[in-house]
Amino acid sequence: MVSQDKTAKVDFESLLRIFTVPEGPESTLTQIEDRLSLNLNEFLKEHIVAEEKPLREIEKDFNDSLLPESPTFVSEHTQHLLDTLVSHSVHTSSPSFIGHMTSALPYFLMPLSKIMIALNQNLVKIETSKAFTPLERQVLGMLHSLIYAQSDDFYAKWMHSAQHSLGAFCSGGTIANITALWVARNNAFPANGEFKGIEQQGIFKALKHYDYEGIAILVSERGHYSLKKAADVLGIGRESLIAVKTDENNKICLDDLETKLVELESNRIKTIAVVGIAGTTETGNIDPLEEIAKQCQKHQCHFHVDAAWGGATLMSNKHRHLLAGIELADSVTIDAHKQLYIPMGAGMVLFKDPHAMASVEHHAAYILRKGSKDLGSHSLEGSRSGMAMLVYSSMHIISRPGYELLINEGLDKARFFADLVSKQDDFELITDPELCLLTYRYIPARVRTALEKATGKNKHKLNELLNGLTQFIQKRQRENGLSFVSRTTLTPKQWDGMTTIVFRVVLANPLTTHDILKNVLNEQREIAKMAPSLNKQIDALVSTIESEL
Amino acid sequence: MVSQDKTAKVDFESLLRIFTVPEGPESTLTQIEDRLSLNLNEFLKEHIVAEEKPLREIEKDFNDSLLPESPTFVSEHTQHLLDTLVSHSVHTSSPSFIGHMTSALPYFLMPLSKIMIALNQNLVKIETSKAFTPLERQVLGMLHSLIYAQSDDFYAKWMHSAQHSLGAFCSGGTIANITALWVARNNAFPANGEFKGIEQQGIFKALKHYDYEGIAILVSERGHYSLKKAADVLGIGRESLIAVKTDENNKICLDDLETKLVELESNRIKTIAVVGIAGTTETGNIDPLEEIAKQCQKHQCHFHVDAAWGGATLMSNKHRHLLAGIELADSVTIDAHKQLYIPMGAGMVLFKDPHAMASVEHHAAYILRKGSKDLGSHSLEGSRSGMAMLVYSSMHIISRPGYELLINEGLDKARFFADLVSKQDDFELITDPELCLLTYRYIPARVRTALEKATGKNKHKLNELLNGLTQFIQKRQRENGLSFVSRTTLTPKQWDGMTTIVFRVVLANPLTTHDILKNVLNEQREIAKMAPSLNKQIDALVSTIESEL
Repeated sequence: MVSQDKTAKVDFESLLRIFTVPEGPESTLTQIEDRLSLNLNEFLKEHIVAEEKPLREIEKDFNDSLLPESPTFVSEHTQHLLDTLVSHSVHTSSPSFIGHMTSALPYFLMPLSKIMIALNQNLVKIETSKAFTPLERQVLGMLHSLIYAQSDDFYAKWMHSAQHSLGAFCSGGTIANITALWVARNNAFPANGEFKGIEQQGIFKALKHYDYEGIAILVSERGHYSLKKAADVLGIGRESLIAVKTDENNKICLDDLETKLVELESNRIKTIAVVGIAGTTETGNIDPLEEIAKQCQKHQCHFHVDAAWGGATLMSNKHRHLLAGIELADSVTIDAHKQLYIPMGAGMVLFKDPHAMASVEHHAAYILRKGSKDLGSHSLEGSRSGMAMLVYSSMHIISRPGYELLINEGLDKARFFADLVSKQDDFELITDPELCLLTYRYIPARVRTALEKATGKNKHKLNELLNGLTQFIQKRQRENGLSFVSRTTLTPKQWDGMTTIVFRVVLANPLTTHDILKNVLNEQREIAKMAPSLNKQIDALVSTIESEL
Repeated sequence: MVSQDKTAKVDFESLLRIFTVPEGPESTLTQIEDRLSLNLNEFLKEHIVAEEKPLREIEKDFNDSLLPESPTFVSEHTQHLLDTLVSHSVHTSSPSFIGHMTSALPYFLMPLSKIMIALNQNLVKIETSKAFTPLERQVLGMLHSLIYAQSDDFYAKWMHSAQHSLGAFCSGGTIANITALWVARNNAFPANGEFKGIEQQGIFKALKHYDYEGIAILVSERGHYSLKKAADVLGIGRESLIAVKTDENNKICLDDLETKLVELESNRIKTIAVVGIAGTTETGNIDPLEEIAKQCQKHQCHFHVDAAWGGATLMSNKHRHLLAGIELADSVTIDAHKQLYIPMGAGMVLFKDPHAMASVEHHAAYILRKGSKDLGSHSLEGSRSGMAMLVYSSMHIISRPGYELLINEGLDKARFFADLVSKQDDFELITDPELCLLTYRYIPARVRTALEKATGKNKHKLNELLNGLTQFIQKRQRENGLSFVSRTTLTPKQWDGMTTIVFRVVLANPLTTHDILKNVLNEQREIAKMAPSLNKQIDALVSTIESEL
């Protein structure tokens, strides 16, 4: 059971050792840890197999549903993890892994994480977290001031106030969004006369008391899927997450927003929140936040901004103007595990008004007593780890100007890549990067001309074939294991809203170089040739279109 | 910015180094990490200050709401963390910290956690987690088989099925409970005729369609506070979490449950779930699960078991009979960060029926495509870390028989401590341990006799004074920093249901010895003497009561 033993036995004495005797310096686990500490990228490059093994094959190693009836030596198990798990995990920190929002981590976070885990605090209450509680409140305060820039007096008064909360630290953006909409919903139906408030009496009685026929949340078509989940969980229903049209830049149409708000009102449906997006997941665009705020004020509803990914841009004095109006939001979601370069599991929601969360406050006799500063009285989650420490440390070690450099670099790189794509005669930029995210596809010049000139069925047929090709390239590229871009489906205005599958690239990794980006295109160009049947169909259709002109 | 630098500067080159150059072996951070790896307890004992500093004082170190405008050296910041954070954190792994459910961790989890964090997988989808996805599904399968013991065929068919799910891994028991009740709610109001299902159309339309006046969830008075939060979030309302009476052993009264079920039905209120508790947070008792299951079957409602803490007892062949009937539950919550000795942030909910979660399934174009095995399509959370790896490793390294020893040891120790308390003439056992949790209080023999004989106002007054004394002892003991027990408020039948503040002890730490337990009582006895004014009042009242007899 412990690596020093000769035979694995299950007795209490040897069991106690796993709680008291660390792995020796010669143990497999320590050696692996050391190598990983020394050069993480080298370690991962060495241990993650490049070529993808089909999931069905990987699953064979994870098929046993019975709990092991005999212990395994730590060293043996570590080797097993290397062979079956690490080898088939995803190299998310690789500079050529530019398909998702998970990027490289600063080195100092690895040992700090270990300290955080060894301390094993539980942030739900002071008794199990002590100094971690004011630390987390400070981190929330810092993010609050990054967004809202209130006075020193404001923070002196509210940051550590037992009865108030500037926000909540949570496992991720989804919980953050749910928390924001939970607060919005509860504040929209407060206690009134005989009615004790929606938190006490639920939606059914709330709507009856206030004489409404329904509840709605508005967000553009590009809203994150977590909002639908939120509408479901909160008892509002997915249908009641109303999609507002977007313009050619994937930003919310203000006219349509206004129309929908008025229409809902006249149908006696209460809009509890409009969600503005500061960096859509698919295209990286930012809604006109100031204008949405005005609409929300006019219609008296909560304004939430989902800046899970784009919120980090506030760190950049050069680019933060892109999010102008965010300071007018009632609540904002920011994920630290995205562009704040923190390990997975660090989301936050901030509320402008320190009283906002009162409507979701809860207490219990054994913990979270009234008047205590226990963080658990204002969070959707209960027991939580001390992840806030990693944000706190990164804020201090990197500092705001450091983050600004990282953000600016990402935007510059996206600009470079967009220009690079535009210059190719066999690629097409689909969405221009507003932040560090862009989409494009492979489309040789001749095919593009044909697609532009084609009409009716042929146009759609050719586009469908191109979708197949994009899908083929993306999948094969992932399987090759050299680089990774993601894909999504858009309806670009330049192609009359035809359903278009595109490559999607996020350039947040500071280690990604221009050469890597050039190679990504070269590789895609090469892979495109490896679909003979698809290419044949495309060629044939292009010829038909050309001949019909 | 990196420790090797002479001066901290913010340029992109030095910024890149924090992503590429690890902390050197001589750096403060590496040295701290090494010392922590070598002897965690010693490290914590050395660095956590024993005597408690008032929270107000600690907060002074966490008061700045502005983001740092210049970077800090890693070494300097590490020292700062030691001085301000680590020193005032809570020594949760200390063998004399027996007040909460957070205990010591096996040593091998520290390096494994670092590997998990360095890999930085995102379990929301295969593309960012690959082998971690089948691994997590296997962990859920193992827990499922621990509870439900289905056939090999069952697990071969469902464990890795894209369209199905045996449960969800989540950040903790609260999210697990919310998920279970979300599923229960959605399954109670399925699509029917024109009605598209509660997940689509929300609670208001669901109740109207099915002609109900409300929704209820039933749980005993000892239910965890997270259930109230769940009722609020889910739009049901906290009032609709109906508290069922408990008997003298803090177990749910089946008669009262039946009465309430019938009453709700006759009022056209739909009970979507009854929650059985397998290890109440305050007293550690287990509800009669088999009988609750029968009632649920009779009334056709979802049976959820909150075994967040007690579920680990299933690992013990000797004691698992205490949870008999759990295999009849539709869903079960188990926290791995409690008695499975995993770091904070590892909860799970298991569903008996692999189809149960279909009603909360969701998809999106860019991820979670239909037919994919992405775990995110069945979870309340979105982005999630690879915590399941730590559960997987512990299952293999400790194995079921190893866990059994840990569980049995905890129960034996609780028995020992209960007997020890009972033998003292100045302590009183309030609740006998069914698992490894018990409650007691300090009450000298003479005071006890007086309390037994007293009547009316004096009885309550004396009990109030004792409550004050218990509170005083618990607080002072925590402040002294030598040991820690928690406290809660009960209404014990042996004291005619008088509101009684008690010490609460959880004996899960395998390093806690009998001597430590004896010392806890001795320390409490000593502290009791340090409240002269309270003692004087108690003495005076006891004399009055004695003279009146």
